[in-house]
Amino acid sequence: MPPMDEPTLVAAYRSVRAFTEQLCEPLEIEDYMLQAAVEASPPKWHLAHVSWFFETFLLKPFLPGYAVFHPQFDHLFNSYYEQTEAGFWPRPERGLISRPTVAEVYAYRHHVDDGMMRLLSDCPPEHQATVQARLEIGLNHEQQHQELLVTDIKYNLAYNPLRPAYRGDLPVAKVQDPVPLTFTAFEGGIQSFGAVEPGQQQGRSPAQRDRQAEQGSQAQRESQGAAQGFAYDNEFPRHQRLLEPFRLADRLVTNAEYQAFIDDGGYRHPGLWLSDGWAQIKTQGWQAPLYWEQLDGQWHETRLAGRRPLNPAEPVCHLSYFEADAYARWAGRRLPTEFEWEHAAAGRPVEGHFVDAGRFHPTPAGAGSLQQLFGDCWEWTSSAYLPYPRYRAVDGALGEYNGKFMSGQMVLRGGSCATSRNHARATYRNFFYPHERWQFKGIRLAEDQA
Amino acid sequence: MPPMDEPTLVAAYRSVRAFTEQLCEPLEIEDYMLQAAVEASPPKWHLAHVSWFFETFLLKPFLPGYAVFHPQFDHLFNSYYEQTEAGFWPRPERGLISRPTVAEVYAYRHHVDDGMMRLLSDCPPEHQATVQARLEIGLNHEQQHQELLVTDIKYNLAYNPLRPAYRGDLPVAKVQDPVPLTFTAFEGGIQSFGAVEPGQQQGRSPAQRDRQAEQGSQAQRESQGAAQGFAYDNEFPRHQRLLEPFRLADRLVTNAEYQAFIDDGGYRHPGLWLSDGWAQIKTQGWQAPLYWEQLDGQWHETRLAGRRPLNPAEPVCHLSYFEADAYARWAGRRLPTEFEWEHAAAGRPVEGHFVDAGRFHPTPAGAGSLQQLFGDCWEWTSSAYLPYPRYRAVDGALGEYNGKFMSGQMVLRGGSCATSRNHARATYRNFFYPHERWQFKGIRLAEDQA
Amino acid sequence: MPPMDEPTLVAAYRSVRAFTEQLCEPLEIEDYMLQAAVEASPPKWHLAHVSWFFETFLLKPFLPGYAVFHPQFDHLFNSYYEQTEAGFWPRPERGLISRPTVAEVYAYRHHVDDGMMRLLSDCPPEHQATVQARLEIGLNHEQQHQELLVTDIKYNLAYNPLRPAYRGDLPVAKVQDPVPLTFTAFEGGIQSFGAVEPGQQQGRSPAQRDRQAEQGSQAQRESQGAAQGFAYDNEFPRHQRLLEPFRLADRLVTNAEYQAFIDDGGYRHPGLWLSDGWAQIKTQGWQAPLYWEQLDGQWHETRLAGRRPLNPAEPVCHLSYFEADAYARWAGRRLPTEFEWEHAAAGRPVEGHFVDAGRFHPTPAGAGSLQQLFGDCWEWTSSAYLPYPRYRAVDGALGEYNGKFMSGQMVLRGGSCATSRNHARATYRNFFYPHERWQFKGIRLAEDQA
Amino acid sequence: MPPMDEPTLVAAYRSVRAFTEQLCEPLEIEDYMLQAAVEASPPKWHLAHVSWFFETFLLKPFLPGYAVFHPQFDHLFNSYYEQTEAGFWPRPERGLISRPTVAEVYAYRHHVDDGMMRLLSDCPPEHQATVQARLEIGLNHEQQHQELLVTDIKYNLAYNPLRPAYRGDLPVAKVQDPVPLTFTAFEGGIQSFGAVEPGQQQGRSPAQRDRQAEQGSQAQRESQGAAQGFAYDNEFPRHQRLLEPFRLADRLVTNAEYQAFIDDGGYRHPGLWLSDGWAQIKTQGWQAPLYWEQLDGQWHETRLAGRRPLNPAEPVCHLSYFEADAYARWAGRRLPTEFEWEHAAAGRPVEGHFVDAGRFHPTPAGAGSLQQLFGDCWEWTSSAYLPYPRYRAVDGALGEYNGKFMSGQMVLRGGSCATSRNHARATYRNFFYPHERWQFKGIRLAEDQA
Repeated sequence: MPPMDEPTLVAAYRSVRAFTEQLCEPLEIEDYMLQAAVEASPPKWHLAHVSWFFETFLLKPFLPGYAVFHPQFDHLFNSYYEQTEAGFWPRPERGLISRPTVAEVYAYRHHVDDGMMRLLSDCPPEHQATVQARLEIGLNHEQQHQELLVTDIKYNLAYNPLRPAYRGDLPVAKVQDPVPLTFTAFEGGIQSFGAVEPGQQQGRSPAQRDRQAEQGSQAQRESQGAAQGFAYDNEFPRHQRLLEPFRLADRLVTNAEYQAFIDDGGYRHPGLWLSDGWAQIKTQGWQAPLYWEQLDGQWHETRLAGRRPLNPAEPVCHLSYFEADAYARWAGRRLPTEFEWEHAAAGRPVEGHFVDAGRFHPTPAGAGSLQQLFGDCWEWTSSAYLPYPRYRAVDGALGEYNGKFMSGQMVLRGGSCATSRNHARATYRNFFYPHERWQFKGIRLAEDQA
Repeated sequence: MPPMDEPTLVAAYRSVRAFTEQLCEPLEIEDYMLQAAVEASPPKWHLAHVSWFFETFLLKPFLPGYAVFHPQFDHLFNSYYEQTEAGFWPRPERGLISRPTVAEVYAYRHHVDDGMMRLLSDCPPEHQATVQARLEIGLNHEQQHQELLVTDIKYNLAYNPLRPAYRGDLPVAKVQDPVPLTFTAFEGGIQSFGAVEPGQQQGRSPAQRDRQAEQGSQAQRESQGAAQGFAYDNEFPRHQRLLEPFRLADRLVTNAEYQAFIDDGGYRHPGLWLSDGWAQIKTQGWQAPLYWEQLDGQWHETRLAGRRPLNPAEPVCHLSYFEADAYARWAGRRLPTEFEWEHAAAGRPVEGHFVDAGRFHPTPAGAGSLQQLFGDCWEWTSSAYLPYPRYRAVDGALGEYNGKFMSGQMVLRGGSCATSRNHARATYRNFFYPHERWQFKGIRLAEDQA
Repeated sequence: MPPMDEPTLVAAYRSVRAFTEQLCEPLEIEDYMLQAAVEASPPKWHLAHVSWFFETFLLKPFLPGYAVFHPQFDHLFNSYYEQTEAGFWPRPERGLISRPTVAEVYAYRHHVDDGMMRLLSDCPPEHQATVQARLEIGLNHEQQHQELLVTDIKYNLAYNPLRPAYRGDLPVAKVQDPVPLTFTAFEGGIQSFGAVEPGQQQGRSPAQRDRQAEQGSQAQRESQGAAQGFAYDNEFPRHQRLLEPFRLADRLVTNAEYQAFIDDGGYRHPGLWLSDGWAQIKTQGWQAPLYWEQLDGQWHETRLAGRRPLNPAEPVCHLSYFEADAYARWAGRRLPTEFEWEHAAAGRPVEGHFVDAGRFHPTPAGAGSLQQLFGDCWEWTSSAYLPYPRYRAVDGALGEYNGKFMSGQMVLRGGSCATSRNHARATYRNFFYPHERWQFKGIRLAEDQA
Repeated sequence: MPPMDEPTLVAAYRSVRAFTEQLCEPLEIEDYMLQAAVEASPPKWHLAHVSWFFETFLLKPFLPGYAVFHPQFDHLFNSYYEQTEAGFWPRPERGLISRPTVAEVYAYRHHVDDGMMRLLSDCPPEHQATVQARLEIGLNHEQQHQELLVTDIKYNLAYNPLRPAYRGDLPVAKVQDPVPLTFTAFEGGIQSFGAVEPGQQQGRSPAQRDRQAEQGSQAQRESQGAAQGFAYDNEFPRHQRLLEPFRLADRLVTNAEYQAFIDDGGYRHPGLWLSDGWAQIKTQGWQAPLYWEQLDGQWHETRLAGRRPLNPAEPVCHLSYFEADAYARWAGRRLPTEFEWEHAAAGRPVEGHFVDAGRFHPTPAGAGSLQQLFGDCWEWTSSAYLPYPRYRAVDGALGEYNGKFMSGQMVLRGGSCATSRNHARATYRNFFYPHERWQFKGIRLAEDQA
């Protein structure tokens, strides 16, 4: 991996850290405390946790003389790393901690920023590779929490019966009809998937790859994505699979289409649902996507701009896997596998409506093939989140980042209107439990090709 | 009931309202949001709810042209009145509402204050009696919430592993040994209990009382306590009971005494416990009073001044009924009935350590008979919270104030260091479920007299 | 206490033990396993537990050379005695134990019977008083479980959607209209309550009583009721209370009257309910008494004879305290205290429809004052189950029999159609949690007297 | 599909039905009622449910004049088919139904048998194909419940602290040391998987296959496996995948090996566990496989023959996926995918220790490659249970058989000591949730090949 120069690293660090704080600017201090569901952490916690990550994995091991900001923050702001000493405060109770105050958390951030500037400007050569690798993970980690900040703020504000807006000044797409639904065909065959590991050459034999992997140091493994742009360990190694011919929808399913499913009794026919899904909608009383509610007979949707009537052309979002799967069955289609999706996306430009666009909501598709692949909504695939062949997690607590979640979850692809553009790529694997709805998650249909 | 003059009413109103806000002065905005247990409501909610009470029961029915501050506050800040139209936001979720902000809640308070000033200065004569009666209830209601503010702030801050203090500058009693435990004897016999209802003359026959009650108007019933000082409906009617001779401890049980119970295996011997109490301590893992924890082999207690080593002479507090009862059994004594307590307290001056003292913690007893009857700690009695003979709740939603809680709870007497002195009296009946510990609740022993 | 002769004791023992088995005769082996609710234990468990009681408190301590039937039965068939060594199998899982089989449980019974016969025929003189006292407790204990057998069988069979009958041949009262509701007046005044303790003379001073109690041996205390007929420790000591004048209904509330309450929206008006009661009916979805269901617009009731249309004249039963209390409020009356009830019942003959009548259901009242005081249905009182003044539990595990349940429960009086006639008396205190409905529990109204 | 002759069908039917009853012979009537966990249904329910299956899917639609045995059995003995009219009795409450009695359930079985004999002897030609197809499903369905009978009886008896044996006369393997662990290598490459659908020819293009599938009748689809031996719809269609080179262990992991994992702190090191697995063992307090317990410092295992000391050479079983996965990680290996397993098993004889052997417990492996592939223990694979490409469920309620469970579960392969030999095959896909342990589930290790 070629070492990046210090100014580049510093600029990347400053940029990511600044954007986190920019996302919080519209908040009242009271909003920083909210946790209306276990998975929707308070903004204050996110702000502190991402700083804890740099402190734990970079400043404490590599910055000589670094003094922690507060001895108990290691406990309070660890998320789920079981292999660190201090354990972690229970996730469902992150909103029950009023101190440190918001101001103190910002002070903590700046304390960590100061340490990071010192580390980046004066890193011993023997640690440079590891520091750079972990810095990259730390920045990507903070970008993930930026997306969670957006979706958690949305959830927590929308829970309030007053339905306060995050920002009342957000642009809202004009009400329009969707473009017709068309499909693009793919031939299938043996194809390659996943990101190229550093030192992994495509075409080499597995035996060669494996020997090299065994020789690689832990530092190399942690920094593995640098040569080609960053990738998480769960995208490795690049490998081949056999695809059957398939066709992929050119846009996401719209609100209008999903409303037709509801009107047709979609939530009342058990034959459309997976068994766990049927149990879920019965137990929870779900009759529509999250954030939908009827006022005077008209469906409305609470969004970050506040509550608005549904726009039929916008992509339906905030669906569980169960709903996406039931919709596809009702529509006579199916969800794509994560490999079909990646095959279709590979090589295409990473363009779309990301958080950078500042809209904070998916937008209607234009005409053309394979619209909205990136941005707008994460797309549920029919693939369970499992390791790729020969996957190996890194050692130690950082190895808990991705690998330990490989059971019970489904893969989503493509990024959303809350994702940073430079965080998205064709090989990126997001994953959630099938019942979770609070992310921007939508549906792209697929079908078998004769 | 003699009408109070407007300046007196206004002064009482201003005084109570101001004290509520004074209690909140040490808080950070973040602290206003906390609800770490269902029963420990956020300060913001208390501030708004007590204003909602005046708005609902006085301004809306009696102030012509009153405009509500916000149409949905009727739903958000109703506590438990089932008979009002808007229903109420679920109690466990009071901390999940970041808007209205703290500033907006204060604005709501002042909006209500303005309305109340107008109502008191210009009340139509035909409503004066009811307005005055409800004003008295409203002020006593706000005083109850002042006590809850203190105990809820204590609970919510103490839940934080950083154990932040409410106020670091509070006076703390010096460590000392308790005075010896002595008892005062009472003869028993037929005695009177409860508050005199307006129009209820002691000595009249029940038949006379009943006829008069049937003739009384609702307004008279609501304002019933005015002639003799305020009393809640659950203190009516004054009536007679037969007491057996008994002896009552001259002070509360101390931390030192309770620690001896713990050291003797008090929490491990089922024979000391009520069946529901044993289930409770097993399920919850209780091994000491709330707020006690051991650090380096020494018991500490988190109080509003922060975490401190136990003071052996201070009254033990934050106990459930089950713990008070088990302690008494271990000590070879018993808890007093609420009638024994009232008989001992009747006619004595209402003196003691109340919230007015600004200590926010019970203090060691001095020598002398029947110390600490008022203030310091609420005292668990062995009496279930039940209606007095011929008790009748007022009609309508206000009738839900006390009467509907008359099952499953136990009576406590005397007030605490978080009670206002002018809120305490010998006939006052407080009540909580036997497992609840977050109020300042302690133990006064009693025993049978030969 | 005068010693009973051996033939009398043996006859009493044989009679009680035989009736338990007689009650089980209509059961299929499968029915012996059922536990459809935590509180409705399987018949097999009852059969074994009452035998365990004799084994534990009589055979093991007093019969030389007694060999236990099975070493693990001490664990399996202990109900709730925390102070015995083996602990007890969890109450909710009594139906999950197929072995010992029903046949083995009967063999266990006979093994215990053999031991008891030997003990009674050859008891060392120094143990005779204690053995006789414990025998009396054991027989009364078994009678209590006979009642539970009936009510648990009813619950467990009625849970089955096939609604199988316990006995299809039971007599069923003809459908008729209730007799009109009248009341009997009582003057009140200082009255005596409770059972006379052995050695307790009415009229002696409390000081005298107390000195004597301290001198009494444990054996005397356990056998305390013998002189006047048996009584449980919770009926002691006899003491005085002051009653206000009151009136008591001459019969129980009928199905027809309760149906009028339902038809008037009784289950929909929160103002009629205690707070805990309203929460209970909302959580459980209760809209009628247990065992009521509507078929083709007509209320039916599942009884031990199977499902039948409601008989308007029969007493309403299987109500919670909350329902009894709400009904009384709706009817403009109230429930009696346990002392009002006892005062009315004292000195009257213990007559009524008991289990001895073999009807297994309450019957319509006849005309006349104070009908149905004994038998038919237990009558909810407004008294919490608390110790009488100077109550003391016996030492050791037997002391857990009654005393440890003195929190959170309400007193019921009078016995039911599932109680043995010789188990009922005016001083008997039954107790259940306010939400429990599976016993035969009904309503007798009371009101204040002018 | 070639029609089978009537004698063959009748013989198959009689044989399967008889074996179900044979499995129940050692039971006491009380055992038929047990359901000690939601998933461990009572034997009585299994006996009735498999009969309900024939009644619902064969007798009611195809036998003219068939009279149901009892109108409510359609509700009581439906398992989970949402699309039938009567709904189903809640699964957790199958043990709360004492009637019908065991004798009545056997009468129900014989009533259904009579109907089936009439249907098979006199089936209208136009229904023969469908009847034969559904009969095959019904018999395979009953075989699955035979396995559940064994595992549920084991669970329900072992829950009893008396640890009663199902049969005390079962053979038990002598205590011995395991054979050494060796691996067999496989080359990988493009391979075929799954069962050949009727009318599906290997080598035809997907387009051809798809057209044919659309023309096929529902009857053909239901009967699809007949030509090659029966297969469930979840084994279709046969398709190709790309395998990387791998090595597969020659035997199952033994008790001795698993005990070394425990002794090394396997249950205490979070780094070995999936996140959901760590939560599971913490919540449940798991420290060993199901049925293991320590007596006097020695591990014992409760089996159908009763409680015995562990045999080190026997395969470890009754593990969750989480434990299998953690063990593999600790051992430096991994679990195989279901495709690796199938590739290794394809073409090998279906030999091993099945229920036909009458041992009811897995047995020590012999030396040699790929021992124990079939029988002994189901083998957890690392594959999520998902549809094969182009999978289609049949229409109607029968389509709920397999397809609706395709989320959240993992695939197991190979069969167990409780499976019928003629029910096992290389393409068979069993599936359970990752936390479930009550089946005979073990571990076969795999590893990547250089």
